[in-house]
Parts: sequence; structure tokens; C-alpha cells
Amino acid sequence: MTPFARTVGPGGDRTGRPVLAVVGATGAVGTVLLSLLSERADVWGEIRLIASPRWAGRVREVRGEDVSVRALNEEALKGADVAVFAVPDEVAAEWVPVAASNGTVVVDGSKAFRMDGDVPLVVPELNGHAVGSRPRGIIASPGCTTLSMIVAMGALHAEWGLRELIVSSYEAVSAAGRTGVEALRGQLAALTSADAAGAELGRHPGDIRRVVADGLGSVAAAPVGDASNPHATPVAYNVVPFTGEMAEGGWTSDELTVRQETRKVLGLPELRVAATCVRVPVLTAHSVSVHARFEHEVSVPEAHAILANAPGVVLCDDPVQGDFPTPADVAGTDPTWAGRVRKSLDDPCALELFVCADNLRKGAALNMAQIAERVVA
Amino acid sequence: MTPFARTVGPGGDRTGRPVLAVVGATGAVGTVLLSLLSERADVWGEIRLIASPRWAGRVREVRGEDVSVRALNEEALKGADVAVFAVPDEVAAEWVPVAASNGTVVVDGSKAFRMDGDVPLVVPELNGHAVGSRPRGIIASPGCTTLSMIVAMGALHAEWGLRELIVSSYEAVSAAGRTGVEALRGQLAALTSADAAGAELGRHPGDIRRVVADGLGSVAAAPVGDASNPHATPVAYNVVPFTGEMAEGGWTSDELTVRQETRKVLGLPELRVAATCVRVPVLTAHSVSVHARFEHEVSVPEAHAILANAPGVVLCDDPVQGDFPTPADVAGTDPTWAGRVRKSLDDPCALELFVCADNLRKGAALNMAQIAERVVA
Repeated sequence: MTPFARTVGPGGDRTGRPVLAVVGATGAVGTVLLSLLSERADVWGEIRLIASPRWAGRVREVRGEDVSVRALNEEALKGADVAVFAVPDEVAAEWVPVAASNGTVVVDGSKAFRMDGDVPLVVPELNGHAVGSRPRGIIASPGCTTLSMIVAMGALHAEWGLRELIVSSYEAVSAAGRTGVEALRGQLAALTSADAAGAELGRHPGDIRRVVADGLGSVAAAPVGDASNPHATPVAYNVVPFTGEMAEGGWTSDELTVRQETRKVLGLPELRVAATCVRVPVLTAHSVSVHARFEHEVSVPEAHAILANAPGVVLCDDPVQGDFPTPADVAGTDPTWAGRVRKSLDDPCALELFVCADNLRKGAALNMAQIAERVVA
Repeated sequence: MTPFARTVGPGGDRTGRPVLAVVGATGAVGTVLLSLLSERADVWGEIRLIASPRWAGRVREVRGEDVSVRALNEEALKGADVAVFAVPDEVAAEWVPVAASNGTVVVDGSKAFRMDGDVPLVVPELNGHAVGSRPRGIIASPGCTTLSMIVAMGALHAEWGLRELIVSSYEAVSAAGRTGVEALRGQLAALTSADAAGAELGRHPGDIRRVVADGLGSVAAAPVGDASNPHATPVAYNVVPFTGEMAEGGWTSDELTVRQETRKVLGLPELRVAATCVRVPVLTAHSVSVHARFEHEVSVPEAHAILANAPGVVLCDDPVQGDFPTPADVAGTDPTWAGRVRKSLDDPCALELFVCADNLRKGAALNMAQIAERVVA
């Protein structure tokens, strides 16, 4: 506990243990969160499930018990010691302050408060102490792309002093929620049928857009960000170098988010960061190709030792034996997997590496669960 | 023509036009080459098709005519003015010198001679003049990853002086030939069946390896580089950060190749290059996320003008309108497509951009066809 910290109280349920509200309990991240809460050491009294009104009355299982989902409103939030919000940005912007004003400590996974100077942005392995300094009663969890790499990069930074990150991502469709997953599956089904009918997929320009349009109707033609087509173009058999929204100077909101979040979590406001965010036809787990430049000279054996010993990181780096991180192997696991570590051939202070993490677990639900547990520890 | 150049001669067929031999005419690249030769301005007399003996006697169409495939041997090569080799490295190593010793000018797409100091490495848009300086009678064409980005990067280099490239690739399976494509299709079919049967793909570690192993038997278990499994692990619903073979310091052969080839083609032996090569579940067209640092200050409007005017490059950079390069749109086209151009927020001399090119066309067959045409021009 830092001097800023206060324990949660005087709440708790009849057992005296703290009450946790999970807001957005039925979404892609919420579903993983319930599964994590059922697996992890049980520090909670009541776990209250809250979602948008259309889900009210549905039943979800957590810790082996069926729990009825409540509609999101002031009444449902009352009495919660901690509330984890896994909801869209605009819902968080409206309801997080409501919960916080009741004295509930809010752990928010949305973008709404991450850059607020009075809201700590927390990755427990790196800056867990910051949960105690929460003047607004809100603690933010970073976005999935940042979270997919930052535990590994923080460990290397602690040793060598990070100066620059140049990263390119390979992001799973589940970061766009259930519709993101359904869009990829629907596109693959349409393309597989067309393929069986003899089309030479991938050989002719426009093929994939056309086949997907034929097979899925309006989905492929829907504008960027449309709920039925959360990817900017078809992602099946494709990679899409555009996620989020357009921001300034040609950068996307997601790319600037990686820069801002990394700087804030590591406490390096001057860190040089250039990110390119790309959607790939993977269901779950983000990958990031990282070029990292440090203040001090690096070595691969030392990097291996740092990564192997870092909490929350698994070193996976023996490519000849097939040991390198891939999303298929990493999906469903908690840690950040790091491999393909190479020292720059041009700069003694630079490393390349390839990291993967489950975007729904460490990239979202797990980091929020860890923050919530830290609040009541 | 440079002072080193000589025109081909005194060969030619009865029409007096030069004889072209296509060696490897039945492979993935050879097939695209025949299609290109049928589309492009026809500068050739006889076009002779050559492949491994098991293909001898098969018929392939080129320029609208059926041509019988001949087995690769000394007799078949004799009398060719130019021979384009689209064959595996070991076949090129054996047969390219045989053809060259007969006075045939060889355009070789393999790795076998690319780094030979007496063999020019040519990208016609950038150093086409070098075809004239060929002491061994051999001209090499770079690998598909280098070719996917270098025309765009060469254009920017000419203006601003390239100093460093940090690149991450998104490479199509067709770079691993027909078996690469068949492996992805087979894996997707196995996974789609498993998915329909209710498996939660991508949620559990090992799922994809297991389903693919169940569905395809030995294919998934085959060692890296095995002919039936040219990808290092299953690539369906996955990305694989390992292509080629392991080289030194943790770098792969493909990653070092990008560095060496880029330096040689651009004539920049000291250029800083760090590449990370990653296979993705795309059939055709490679993408490259590029961080490029130059000697002089850059600007996005100037970069747009340079790329829009560069021969062999198409600028595609209006993301809000859906205009950014993706492999699905680029497959089957000749140029390098460039977009997502951003100026570094930290370094006035650095740009990020995203480029795509068809790995079988500009990445292989087209570049070789362009070189061959330049030889006889």
C-alpha cells in the first residue's frame, strides 16, 4: 500500500468481503471476466452482474453459480465496493462517474478516462502501486494493443531504460467484439463456398470484396465502424492496416492510443513511439512486432534472462524447435509470450522481438481483474 | 544502355526475334510468368517452356498458343538468348551456370546468385541499367519481400536519402508455392469443420494445432520446411513469425535477405535495416509495415507526390474513404501500392507507411519479365 491508498470500505456483503459489480457482463470481455473470476483466488463477496437492459434477467454462471443479470442503472450499481466496466466508450463515459459518485471504486476498460490526469492507468505488473492514487475514484486499464506488449517491454525498460518503440501489430478480430468474430467467420464461409466453386481467390483484384459482398450482402458494403462490419474492409484472407478512427496526421486513434498509453504507464512522457495497427484474420490474441531502442547496450542472453524472470511474461524463443509465440498457441492463456529476440545489427542499444498476448485476457479482462484485486488487497 | 551493356545476339529464332526459355514454367511463379508474357508487349520469338522431367510433355498456354513443356537438360537450354529461371535454389545453383556457359543471359529468381559480386541484383524501376554489367552472364532478381516494398522505398530514397529501414512483413502463403496455398486451404477446411461442430476456436491454447493435426494428420506434425507443411506451424487463424531458416543471432535467412538485397539494389552498403518476416493467412500479396528514416526532413504531401509519380507505384492513401492498400485488393495487379503515410511524431526525418505488392507478380514473375525485356531492349 502506498501512502495514497485506502482500503475499500466500509462496504462488503454479509460475509464482510467486498462486493464486485461486473458491468458489461454479457459482452466478449465480460464473458472472459466471469470465467477468470471463477478460476482465480476468490476475494469477492457478492459478484453482481450488470449489462444493458436488453440482457436483464438472463442468467450467467460465475464461480459455479447461476447469477441473474441486472439492467444497468443507479440502483444496480449501489453498494458495490468495486465495479469493473467492460462496456463501450460512450456507456463508460456516462455511467462510470455515476458509480464513482456513490463511492464505488471503478476499474474502467474503456478509452473514456485513460488520459485523464486524475485517473491512473494501471498494469499491475508494472505500476500496481498507482491504484492507490485515484482522486476521481476511477482506475483505467489500457487498450488491448498496449497491454499485449507492455509487460514485456516494461521488464526490459527496468533494466536498460527504454528510449524508442517502433511497433507493428497483428490484431485479432475479437478486439472488435462478437460482431468482429462473426464478421470474419461469415466472410470465411462465403469465401470457402466461392473457392469450392472454382474461383481463384486472391489472384484477381477485387475478388475478395466481391465474393464477400455477394455472400454477405450489405455487410461488406457497410461503412467503416458500422456495427455489422467492424473491420474497415473484409478481413478474411486479408490484412487491414486501419483500425479505430482516423486521427491527426494520418495516424489512427488506435495508433496514437498505443503511444499515449505506453508513455503514461511507463512514466516516460518523452518516449518515442510509432505504432502501425493492423487487423489480421485471427480470432483471439494480438501479436506485436517490436523494435525497441534503449539507453544502454543490450544483449540477447540478458534479454532472455529478463523476460524469463519477469512476472506475467513467458519466454518462448527457440525457433528451430518451433518455439516462438503465435496467437493460436497463446489464446486462452494469461501471460505475455515473448520470442524472436534479436540484437540490432546496426545499433548496440536496440532489440527486435515478437510478443503475443490474449487480447481478451491480459489485453482486457485479466488486467481489469488484477487491478480490482489490487484495490481490495 | 550503359557502356557495359551488350545486346543479345547473334541468336534469335527464324523471325530474328530473341528466343526466351522459361525454366520452371509449371510452378506457381512460372504460371504467373506465362500469363504475364501473354499480356505484355510481345518482344520474343520462340518462348520455350522447360520444367523438371516429370512435367515433360504437358502442355501450357502462352500468348494464346499451346506449347509442350520440355524436360530441363542441356539440350533444352541450347539456343536460348535469354532464360528466366523460376526454380528452387538448388536447381538454380546447378543449372543457371550451365545455361550461362552456353552464352544464354540468365535471369535468376532464386537466392543462389543474388549476393555474388559479379551478378547484378536488379529492380528495373531502380537500377535497370545494371542489366548491362553481367560478367557471369547472370542477372539476379530479389526475393519477394524485398520486391514488395523496394520500388516505393527507392523512390523516396532518391528524394531524401534513405538511412534506416525497420520493417515488419505480412507475407502470403503463395510465397511457399502451391504447397503453401494447399496447406492453408486444408487447415481452414479442417478448422471450419471443427468450428461448425462447436469448438471454440482460438479460445484455448493448442486448439488450432490439435484440430489441424486431427484433420490433416501428418501435415501439422511435419517439421519446419517439410514439403507438405511449408509453414513453421499452422497458419490458418494464425500468424507465424518465422519464415525461411534460422540464420545467425536469432535472425532468419529471410530477414537477413531483406537487409542484404535492399542494400545491394539501392547501392547503400551501410544502410541500417531490421526486418521481421511473418507469414499470415493470405493467399497472395505481401504487405510490409515500414518505418523509414532519411537524411533530410520529410513531409506527407511531398511523400504523396513522390509515390504518386513513381513508376511502378500507386498511391492509395485516403483511409477515411477506405483507400489503403490491402493484399485482397492488390493481388493480381502489377504495381506496388503505398498508403498509410505518416510523418514521425518524434523525428522530422522519419516516415511510416504501409505497402503491398503481389508476391507472384512484382515479387517474382513480373520483375523477372521486366529484367528479361530490358536485356533485349
